[in-house]
Amino acid sequence: MADEWQEAYEFAVEVARKAGMVIKQEIDKEMKVLTKSSTVDLVTKTDERVEKIIIGSLKTKFGEKAHKFIGEESTEKGCELTDAPTWIIDPVDGTTNFVHGFPFVAVSIAFAVKKELEFGVVYSCLEDKMYRARNGKGAFCNDEPISVSDVKDITKSIIISEHGTDRTPAKVEKIFSTMQKILCIPVHGLRGSGTAATNMCLVATGAVEAFFEIGIHCWDVAAGAVIVREAGGIVLDVSGGPFDLMSRRMLSANHEDIAKRIIKEIEVFEVPRDDGVKHLQQPSSF
Amino acid sequence: MADEWQEAYEFAVEVARKAGMVIKQEIDKEMKVLTKSSTVDLVTKTDERVEKIIIGSLKTKFGEKAHKFIGEESTEKGCELTDAPTWIIDPVDGTTNFVHGFPFVAVSIAFAVKKELEFGVVYSCLEDKMYRARNGKGAFCNDEPISVSDVKDITKSIIISEHGTDRTPAKVEKIFSTMQKILCIPVHGLRGSGTAATNMCLVATGAVEAFFEIGIHCWDVAAGAVIVREAGGIVLDVSGGPFDLMSRRMLSANHEDIAKRIIKEIEVFEVPRDDGVKHLQQPSSF
Repeated sequence: MADEWQEAYEFAVEVARKAGMVIKQEIDKEMKVLTKSSTVDLVTKTDERVEKIIIGSLKTKFGEKAHKFIGEESTEKGCELTDAPTWIIDPVDGTTNFVHGFPFVAVSIAFAVKKELEFGVVYSCLEDKMYRARNGKGAFCNDEPISVSDVKDITKSIIISEHGTDRTPAKVEKIFSTMQKILCIPVHGLRGSGTAATNMCLVATGAVEAFFEIGIHCWDVAAGAVIVREAGGIVLDVSGGPFDLMSRRMLSANHEDIAKRIIKEIEVFEVPRDDGVKHLQQPSSF
Repeated sequence: MADEWQEAYEFAVEVARKAGMVIKQEIDKEMKVLTKSSTVDLVTKTDERVEKIIIGSLKTKFGEKAHKFIGEESTEKGCELTDAPTWIIDPVDGTTNFVHGFPFVAVSIAFAVKKELEFGVVYSCLEDKMYRARNGKGAFCNDEPISVSDVKDITKSIIISEHGTDRTPAKVEKIFSTMQKILCIPVHGLRGSGTAATNMCLVATGAVEAFFEIGIHCWDVAAGAVIVREAGGIVLDVSGGPFDLMSRRMLSANHEDIAKRIIKEIEVFEVPRDDGVKHLQQPSSF
């Protein structure tokens, strides 16, 4: 039964591609008739539609009740991760990019069994890059193996973080203060694609050394986490402790040396967990 | 003689594509044998080699002495812009991205006559997007007409700026302070591709509403300036005054409303001009 989930993995790639095609068509079609100022409805509509396509395809394939689903648009009962086989889905990661036609929009599909991530698929549909990884089977972009960067010297690194959508002054202050301190370590540069899923794939391909964010959701990073690990990288809590999928805190890096150096500068702020559990003490492994 | 420079324009597109292919090959080839930590030489070598290819091609086509050249790698005598037909070239815009394989690297070729920009070509070679524009002839990406966003409400905009390579604390402080104030207007988001030429093309396609930076060079923005204008946008000084190619200050936007609102937040700092002229007083038109 080693390959129990191989069929599901391959099917997830197919479904991600189908979903990505719908997103691309939607951008091409709707952007011609709508002014940008009126695209908020389009986003909601597309998010919901694409998630229905994904979940519908998976239910048709695997049966109505066999698997559980955590999706950005359809999670009504919260994000409880049980031992059941569970799909964790972001139909359109990078909705702001989607509205603006900024070239990073991703479909993110992950699969967990017994609370452990089994595989992840991220389709960066405007770039036509299909990233995928399964535990112990390596990470790929368009079927080519990918691996993280070998840079261990922080001063030769590019680091990604995002400003997020929360504009609470205290949070914004911490985010900017963290970024400024990291820039002045110094590093080669700071970047941000506007989608967490794509950011993690940029770590996995070695284009950047690390990506961290507080405030992301489980569906933004579940697939990316498998891809980074299988590409040889590490995924941690922003404190350096173990990664907790429901904590809304994540640091992925090519190497422990880079991660450790960044963690020194991260100003942590509180966010409610995805599973509604009262905030847990985050242990530090460094 | 209305079409006096059409041949040069078309030839610039050819040369930019050729240069971009060399960059792509160089990344594919060298990244396999070099560790990233040893790529500094590669950058210098590629920058110089690609600039020689571009200037060599132009000299062969138009004669050794007919035109002047301002290029990032070969500007020994400074960047004096005269009335002579002048090519303004950045062979590899986004060298940090180039080193890391971050997916935005551009060839930028502009042409000025009597100190006025006549056309601009930006080839984003890893995306395979050829942007071009000629005065009065429209702007194109891969031969499709492009135009700026119609968003006039700053709160629905994405704004691009870059942290630059200067880590002088006072400058970094102003850059971050400016970005934080703009984010909190609020806007939809902040982005940065790591190349000024590509950033300007993102304004021209409507993916973002504005891009500004202090510290860029004339070769980073000369081609992009024509592309933004021909796509219906505006190019100004960061004070709101007229754009001065040699000033190392530039704001490009889809619309005056967006530009005006951003200018209120920009904390200006001094940088030496590209042409060595002592810093001029920047007039404001707003």
